[in-house]
Amino acid sequence: MEKFELHILGCGSALPTTRHFPTSQVLNVRDKLFMIDCGEGAQLQFRKSRLKFSRLNHIFISHLHGDHCFGLLGLISTLNLLGRTADLHIYSPKGLEELMAPMLAFFNREMTYRLFFHPFETKEATQIYEDRSLTVSTIPLRHRIPCCGFLFAEKPGLNHIVREMVDYYQVPLYELNRIKNGADYVTPEGELIPNSRLTRPAAPARRYAYCSDTLPLASVREQVRGVDLLFHEGTFAEEAAPRARETFHTTAAQAATLAREAGVKRLVIGHFSARYEDESLLLQEATRIFPDTVLARETLCLSVDGAEKT
Amino acid sequence: MEKFELHILGCGSALPTTRHFPTSQVLNVRDKLFMIDCGEGAQLQFRKSRLKFSRLNHIFISHLHGDHCFGLLGLISTLNLLGRTADLHIYSPKGLEELMAPMLAFFNREMTYRLFFHPFETKEATQIYEDRSLTVSTIPLRHRIPCCGFLFAEKPGLNHIVREMVDYYQVPLYELNRIKNGADYVTPEGELIPNSRLTRPAAPARRYAYCSDTLPLASVREQVRGVDLLFHEGTFAEEAAPRARETFHTTAAQAATLAREAGVKRLVIGHFSARYEDESLLLQEATRIFPDTVLARETLCLSVDGAEKT
Repeated sequence: MEKFELHILGCGSALPTTRHFPTSQVLNVRDKLFMIDCGEGAQLQFRKSRLKFSRLNHIFISHLHGDHCFGLLGLISTLNLLGRTADLHIYSPKGLEELMAPMLAFFNREMTYRLFFHPFETKEATQIYEDRSLTVSTIPLRHRIPCCGFLFAEKPGLNHIVREMVDYYQVPLYELNRIKNGADYVTPEGELIPNSRLTRPAAPARRYAYCSDTLPLASVREQVRGVDLLFHEGTFAEEAAPRARETFHTTAAQAATLAREAGVKRLVIGHFSARYEDESLLLQEATRIFPDTVLARETLCLSVDGAEKT
Repeated sequence: MEKFELHILGCGSALPTTRHFPTSQVLNVRDKLFMIDCGEGAQLQFRKSRLKFSRLNHIFISHLHGDHCFGLLGLISTLNLLGRTADLHIYSPKGLEELMAPMLAFFNREMTYRLFFHPFETKEATQIYEDRSLTVSTIPLRHRIPCCGFLFAEKPGLNHIVREMVDYYQVPLYELNRIKNGADYVTPEGELIPNSRLTRPAAPARRYAYCSDTLPLASVREQVRGVDLLFHEGTFAEEAAPRARETFHTTAAQAATLAREAGVKRLVIGHFSARYEDESLLLQEATRIFPDTVLARETLCLSVDGAEKT
């Protein structure tokens, strides 16, 4: 199966602790790297996770709070020092480019590569990225400032040709692409060979959803229905539910409830408040509701469709 | 002896590695904390070194390259989140305040404390800070952009009263301050008691000098003469001496030569290039010239006048 892996670079929240970096993740889709949020130190954690800067071309920023974007300036500068030439694309709620422009101009007088900012609206779910194998759509969230999560969806793959059957029916080569795309085959004698006899179905298209920072939302539940892996913030334990509501955050138990109701396959919680010495209480409260929950931790790598990698 | 300790928060250079944070240090002088440079992740390392944000009131920035100041925005924001009320003072070559103003305004709409920027000239050695027990002066350096090191000098302490002698001569209490400051005492009978009989000398005033980033300079050698501890960048090994010259940096051996010629008591080298897997070669080249050299490393704590702490 093609690679579809999530690397946690940081899973703390705004206040620094001795245990966590602020939020950043990297999704590895067939060796293309997609960064999601870029808190302070993201470039250091990126290196620690043994990822390659040259494979990173797209960065998605959920919202303009410092713990989700203060690592951008250092990362952009490092790529410049390294003499990068490929374009770099940054997707975020509007305002980021104007905000960063003076610092970028001062610290990177000459850029070896081009930087493109793609502001998105945060009110409606919108597809903001597409390539041959993947789409990325926003997931509108509700936080103290405009904020979106992201849904990474593989495109359905092509059916796999069953070599023996194609040989048996002497299917000409020029028909193979149509058949991969689901077409039946009609022999010169007029016999119809259904596609299902000529192919095996493609591996199921996989989906990863990232939701942070936000109140728990019914609209999110619908948008992430059935995903293979859901990252949802679980900043607080239940005892701090009023604090979560006040600050537009989610408790671990609320994240688990949403995961269960949305029928996702697996949940990873993060964006942990600095108040917790460790997050076992949050895990306990979540697994009671949704057993397939794991705690995020720095340098953790999860296969989106399967077992923990490291 | 009063505390005078150096904490290394980061000792890498511009490119991120898996082993080092960019430059930042904290000098603890009698439990007042002075930060020197503030590379990305400095606030995380500050916490890791178990230092207290409330004791930090002064930050000294050597020059406006990202690996020496990209941690400021995060640190300033964190102090705001924590509801700090005490003033914070930042000393740097000119331009920093204007550069940071838009980001500061956006990410910290309301500040709970006041921030004061103190730009300094980088051409001449100048005293830029003074309190009851300490002065801080700039050390002009030569780098690709305006840059200064810093000399932290304890003020000479008062002599210690020898209780037995003061009792013996029945010195009135109101004379004690003068005697601590070095005055002799004249008894009612007109006998002169020399100060040296009434006091023990104060502990020697200690000095710490920080020099990064720079070419090796004769003027620095004079300004740091005899200091208890010298931090000097030693970015490269000898094989890269041409590269060091080209980029306005110093090799470990050059730093050691400067330390020897300046008669400093101890040298710590840092600002290591990302090209070295470990820095044993740099240490070797330095100790051959100046044996009392140590390698900086993250969370290292050195007593300015003595042994390694952790």
